[in-house]
Amino acid sequence: MIRVQLAGICSTDLQLMRGYKRGFRGVLGHEFVGEVVDAPEYPQWIGRRVVGEINVGCGECELCQRGLGKHCRSRSSLGIIRRDGAFADYLTLPVANLLTVPDAVSDEAAVFTEPLAAALQLLEQYPLRPRERVYVLGDGRLGLLVVQVLARIGAEIVALGRNDNKLAILAERGIATVRIDDRAKMTTLLAHPADLVIEVTGSPAGFELARRLVRPRGTLALKSTFADGLTHFDISSLVVDEITLLGSRCGPFAPALRLLAEDAIAVEPLIHARYPLDEGLAALHHAGQKGVLKVLITVSP
Amino acid sequence: MIRVQLAGICSTDLQLMRGYKRGFRGVLGHEFVGEVVDAPEYPQWIGRRVVGEINVGCGECELCQRGLGKHCRSRSSLGIIRRDGAFADYLTLPVANLLTVPDAVSDEAAVFTEPLAAALQLLEQYPLRPRERVYVLGDGRLGLLVVQVLARIGAEIVALGRNDNKLAILAERGIATVRIDDRAKMTTLLAHPADLVIEVTGSPAGFELARRLVRPRGTLALKSTFADGLTHFDISSLVVDEITLLGSRCGPFAPALRLLAEDAIAVEPLIHARYPLDEGLAALHHAGQKGVLKVLITVSP
Repeated sequence: MIRVQLAGICSTDLQLMRGYKRGFRGVLGHEFVGEVVDAPEYPQWIGRRVVGEINVGCGECELCQRGLGKHCRSRSSLGIIRRDGAFADYLTLPVANLLTVPDAVSDEAAVFTEPLAAALQLLEQYPLRPRERVYVLGDGRLGLLVVQVLARIGAEIVALGRNDNKLAILAERGIATVRIDDRAKMTTLLAHPADLVIEVTGSPAGFELARRLVRPRGTLALKSTFADGLTHFDISSLVVDEITLLGSRCGPFAPALRLLAEDAIAVEPLIHARYPLDEGLAALHHAGQKGVLKVLITVSP
Repeated sequence: MIRVQLAGICSTDLQLMRGYKRGFRGVLGHEFVGEVVDAPEYPQWIGRRVVGEINVGCGECELCQRGLGKHCRSRSSLGIIRRDGAFADYLTLPVANLLTVPDAVSDEAAVFTEPLAAALQLLEQYPLRPRERVYVLGDGRLGLLVVQVLARIGAEIVALGRNDNKLAILAERGIATVRIDDRAKMTTLLAHPADLVIEVTGSPAGFELARRLVRPRGTLALKSTFADGLTHFDISSLVVDEITLLGSRCGPFAPALRLLAEDAIAVEPLIHARYPLDEGLAALHHAGQKGVLKVLITVSP
């Protein structure tokens, strides 16, 4: 049992509120940092400041036995599937899901462990090489983390978005940015398609543009679910151009904590607001506004 | 300049006749074996029996310079894009596209070089490991070659189709086959999804089934274009299950010729009919009938 100290609002929370994954009823929230307050068989964990991987597999099925417990068909998922989440005073997770947060990582950084892990998952799935060209489409919460992670390899990266304030967070760190309504620059990018394109907008229009930005035999990685579905999709073009489409979701927590401990990823500029738990509805409303990045819920500071 | 000896009819030819890739006008046909009869700058090629890679890039663009000439945006493609094809007495291709056919390979085997190369392309893109489980969906011309190629690795392969006669070609060679209308067996397969699923039906229903047969973090390879498009596609499920979708098209000719020279792939049972060139329309009609595998056009025997 963990007393939640700080929780973050993610786009998935907002999608769940709008009906994505119909059927989830319970407490939202899967980004958190907290303190272990009860652990019957593991007393040494009591008092530790922790973050936690959100998926809990059954441990018995073929997928779990093959190390794919995150994809177990009867898994629960903190604040998403059959397990109450982090927008609460307390939550529970198996000890196996927990990682101790190093002292060098503040609460406000630690709460980014889960989304940063999701960004790192791209490197687990795609061995990015320094000579490659990468376009990242989407300057939201997750997009800004993805760009920072991929930029660390030395690859040629361009972040594409619509919001000057968000792109500025990257530009200040020397990363090339392009507004997708800048026709001249977009024409240039389309004429030089990338080896790897990351779609982090979750919109059908974003997917369509991302598809056009990837070179033949290149990879289009999808980091966002599409709450609205895609009405028509020219799958034959994937065959003709031999495109690889890569679905990517949750990632490894330990490397995320290492990068946060090294202060390697700018997360503070992503925090746009903090609310106490009893103003949680206002916090969710705020997080859903255009242009807003991370909204935090302070539970037990 | 090549005098065509024998040409094969491919599903792409039939799709082109139905309007796929609107705008191609010219001679169809891209599977052939023939004899070089004129080669102004390369007289040593005259008289050689050859097969030929079908794509001709511009040689100057960024894609061509990066070795992706098969995907050059201004490429021609034999019998498909801006280049008259093999259902004719003669065709032309650059010498760079040609490979000499070893004596051990008959004309009737050599004409399978192009589709066999397309099957081998899967191994270029996906390093199949012997311990993996593979389902191949579609028992048509290309599907039967794909199964035979992948079965050579020792992986656990099941070929799925609708046609007993076609599946028998594989079963006789010790390969497991399942009819997709066998509910009990399909239920078992769906309960044990594969690491790699190959979609070779080109139908939206085939794609949907293939998607359900692949495990989380598995790969769904697409070997067929979809002439009818897909009306709705749940792309979010690719993200949640972290599926890799792999578009796959033309492949390497040299390994295909090696396998044919070793008599490693059964191609004779795939030949269902032979027509002379002046009965080409009847040949195309025949190739479009349900259950028919390869129809050959004998041009200059």
